[in-house]
Amino acid sequence: MNTLESIISSILPIQEDVVTQANDHLNQLTKPQGSLGKLEDIARQVAGITGEVMPVFDKKAVIVMAGDHGVCEEGISAFPAEVTPQMVLNFLYGGAAVNVLARHAGAEVICVDMGVNADLEHPNLVARKVRKGTRNMALESAMTPDEAIQAIQAGVELVDELAEKGFRLFATGEMGIGNTTASAAILCALTGLDASIAVGRGTGIDDAKWLHKQSVVNKALDVNGLRPAEGQEIQSSGDYALEVLTKVGGLEIAGLVGVILGAAKNRCPVVVDGFISSAAALVASRLAPLSASYMLASHLSQEQGHTKMLEAVGLAAMLQMDMRLGEGTGAVLVFNVIDAAGKIMKEMATFESAGVSRG
Amino acid sequence: MNTLESIISSILPIQEDVVTQANDHLNQLTKPQGSLGKLEDIARQVAGITGEVMPVFDKKAVIVMAGDHGVCEEGISAFPAEVTPQMVLNFLYGGAAVNVLARHAGAEVICVDMGVNADLEHPNLVARKVRKGTRNMALESAMTPDEAIQAIQAGVELVDELAEKGFRLFATGEMGIGNTTASAAILCALTGLDASIAVGRGTGIDDAKWLHKQSVVNKALDVNGLRPAEGQEIQSSGDYALEVLTKVGGLEIAGLVGVILGAAKNRCPVVVDGFISSAAALVASRLAPLSASYMLASHLSQEQGHTKMLEAVGLAAMLQMDMRLGEGTGAVLVFNVIDAAGKIMKEMATFESAGVSRG
Repeated sequence: MNTLESIISSILPIQEDVVTQANDHLNQLTKPQGSLGKLEDIARQVAGITGEVMPVFDKKAVIVMAGDHGVCEEGISAFPAEVTPQMVLNFLYGGAAVNVLARHAGAEVICVDMGVNADLEHPNLVARKVRKGTRNMALESAMTPDEAIQAIQAGVELVDELAEKGFRLFATGEMGIGNTTASAAILCALTGLDASIAVGRGTGIDDAKWLHKQSVVNKALDVNGLRPAEGQEIQSSGDYALEVLTKVGGLEIAGLVGVILGAAKNRCPVVVDGFISSAAALVASRLAPLSASYMLASHLSQEQGHTKMLEAVGLAAMLQMDMRLGEGTGAVLVFNVIDAAGKIMKEMATFESAGVSRG
Repeated sequence: MNTLESIISSILPIQEDVVTQANDHLNQLTKPQGSLGKLEDIARQVAGITGEVMPVFDKKAVIVMAGDHGVCEEGISAFPAEVTPQMVLNFLYGGAAVNVLARHAGAEVICVDMGVNADLEHPNLVARKVRKGTRNMALESAMTPDEAIQAIQAGVELVDELAEKGFRLFATGEMGIGNTTASAAILCALTGLDASIAVGRGTGIDDAKWLHKQSVVNKALDVNGLRPAEGQEIQSSGDYALEVLTKVGGLEIAGLVGVILGAAKNRCPVVVDGFISSAAALVASRLAPLSASYMLASHLSQEQGHTKMLEAVGLAAMLQMDMRLGEGTGAVLVFNVIDAAGKIMKEMATFESAGVSRG
């Protein structure tokens, strides 16, 4: 049984000696030292994660977790909640943006029902429904602690199973109408950021709805006792992160916390998509600080709180595509960049082999 | 004969009606409008460029132009000038970073000697040497006007030939020890920016050499009469851009101006790499303002003047990889993103086909 404690304690630091070996190799290649920037960072990081100087990632998966949000009752989204199950079917039939971009990247889409408010059946659906959507966080706790932990465990176990099948590179994706509201609440609660900065326009709401969304986030923080008093410090403990996730998170977000912890546990890199995935990354980094070394950021979303969210996890985005779709779309685009970094390690000539003078 | 005037007048505006058709299609797809950000921008732009709603780019090429710089006499680089021909051979043998990343992107590397200060022979080398390196711009004009125009024409004609062979997507790349110095001088002369902002650390120089490099750029501007008097406006004419290119540019930079104009003439998108390629893009955009619509920026280089250079052309970078290698390495990474945008257009389900509710 994967208890949360046993999962966290199974996450080890990345292997610094292999990072050093990868770096030594990079410095032999025909380029000024460090001139390939984040391609070199990736090469070092995945070496440290896997323990191999030149790891190969033949099997890649983007894990798209779906869940509904009780807070949709408050009218915070441009789209109706029925879109969550409709889009899950779209993922399963291969027609969504993440399917297209995953095929392009040679990756599989693993579609997981963590808490969709509908009865879904499809041979390729991974059914891990904890309940049919969260409760309305503006009125009460979105989840019980047991529900949140069950969702995290489901994510870890899914990655365990995929790692067993040879998947070694993961990306996070999600679908859930209302989940930028939950993610903004997580950001506020874990960093003390004001809702006016943390809350964005999600799928595309107007000014009036945006102000309303901010007030809903503030109400959820107040109702759940997550707003620090003036001058009070934000708690950085794992227990508090779990409390925040439980009270204002989502089932798909909790599932993605599990995916990230599971990747770290299995010594696999995990690429974090946009705002909602980064909320899961923030919670994971508080629950298990060592897990942060296993994460790669992908893109900077147009969702306005994303910069602050990434800063809080300590990640730097590689793509600036003004995307704001979620699903894992930004993360799978980065799979190609990771493959590129691997080929740089394997295929570039050295100063010696090419007869090029050093600086 | 491609005179500069005939080249410029052959560049037409992109087809706005096809841009509109592409946009109409994008708005049918199962995603909030505009939520794929720059992927959607790319899809619209390449539609307008090619006149096809869903163009296919089977044959892609990164054109890597090499040239030496007389200004290296002033000691402005971390690497000796002999590295230019050494790296050209590395490109021809397939061992450089751009070779690795081009193979990864399914693109050909076209290696062009525009003005290397060595006798080079290789069956795959495209020999277009105008002269063995530029003159030292800190003492005199780097080129004669005829040399600059000859180099531009060579670039245009090369793209004409490649387009004839079916290549429809291009990227710019370059090699030339000393060429960040020339590019910084172009940026200063065409925008009025101070050398302390325009000049970066190139392949990796220390503080003392960086200050020296700034003074060399200032000297080149003064010697060549390219520093506007206090309160005098910078000329925005094509004639002035050509004068700047001639006096403080490089043969490979002039060649890339030709590549960009040639791509626009042939209605092909051209992806602009880092600082030096962007200097060519800036000159091209002044010579033929319509050419700017055919350019796609790729990455934001770590070279410090690059942000200002892209702003001056009106381009926005997609990748933020902290790269500073040149060769076309950032631009070829973007080929994959362009392919992704094409697949989004072709493969995504519509709201109607997938039965998904609209917002």
